[in-house]
Amino acid sequence: MNIRNYTRFFGILNRQFQTYINSAFKDIGLGYSECIFLANLYENEGINQEELSSFLIIDKAITAKTIKSLETKGFLIRTISKKDRRAKNLYLTDKGLNYKEQILNLLEKWIEYISDGIDKDTLDFVFKQIQIMAEKAGNADYDKLIESNINHEIDI
Amino acid sequence: MNIRNYTRFFGILNRQFQTYINSAFKDIGLGYSECIFLANLYENEGINQEELSSFLIIDKAITAKTIKSLETKGFLIRTISKKDRRAKNLYLTDKGLNYKEQILNLLEKWIEYISDGIDKDTLDFVFKQIQIMAEKAGNADYDKLIESNINHEIDI
Repeated sequence: MNIRNYTRFFGILNRQFQTYINSAFKDIGLGYSECIFLANLYENEGINQEELSSFLIIDKAITAKTIKSLETKGFLIRTISKKDRRAKNLYLTDKGLNYKEQILNLLEKWIEYISDGIDKDTLDFVFKQIQIMAEKAGNADYDKLIESNINHEIDI
Repeated sequence: MNIRNYTRFFGILNRQFQTYINSAFKDIGLGYSECIFLANLYENEGINQEELSSFLIIDKAITAKTIKSLETKGFLIRTISKKDRRAKNLYLTDKGLNYKEQILNLLEKWIEYISDGIDKDTLDFVFKQIQIMAEKAGNADYDKLIESNINHEIDI
């Protein structure tokens, strides 16, 4: 299998998952990023915005925009942290909590669907390797990786 | 491992890969989607826009926009297909071909980096399972998957 296919499969998985989430929640105006933030808040309620951004490795500006949108739509509230007055902790509203089961079921159903036919031990093993790759990706030193590859002399 | 982590790992892998590609080519103004299209064109020159869209499972409107941008930037040209005058075949320009080695090396380096420490047989096995999952994702019947999950009666 060639390298292009490796990256193509990750891309397809991601795009299709996004389309699935967007389709499921378009009626209530909840987008992919918002859904992912809510799913992660359900297990980490009280986390602050910076921690959530680091946990998901999502750009701080995108995190701020998404959290603001979820707040405007009434899914969460932000309260000033008692420990650090510059930080804001995130809490779900009743509306946010109302969608917990639906959102988590939706994620579960997707993983069940794409992995149908792969036995549990194999799946655990595969996701353990995917976790290792995601952790490496999360710690990537782009400058170092790119520096050794880019030829700035290309004649265009 | 819980389901949220599964989707989180895929998300992290994808976002970090996009940041890596965008960082590598920001100087020449080539974005993530454009880079992915070029990488796939190198092996499928002459393919038409609809075929490329299906191959990558990328929305037709996004494909059209990305191809148009690559054409404007001088990386490819579109020619009317001899077989079907409504279709346009995609060919790389000299400028597009000049970046072939650099783009393919960049993808290869990323996969090598994230999979460092995983032996070749394991990696082949893992990517075979990822391929199976991507193919399932590509054939997903969203309506069917979503229908059984969404509770339209939720009181918000």
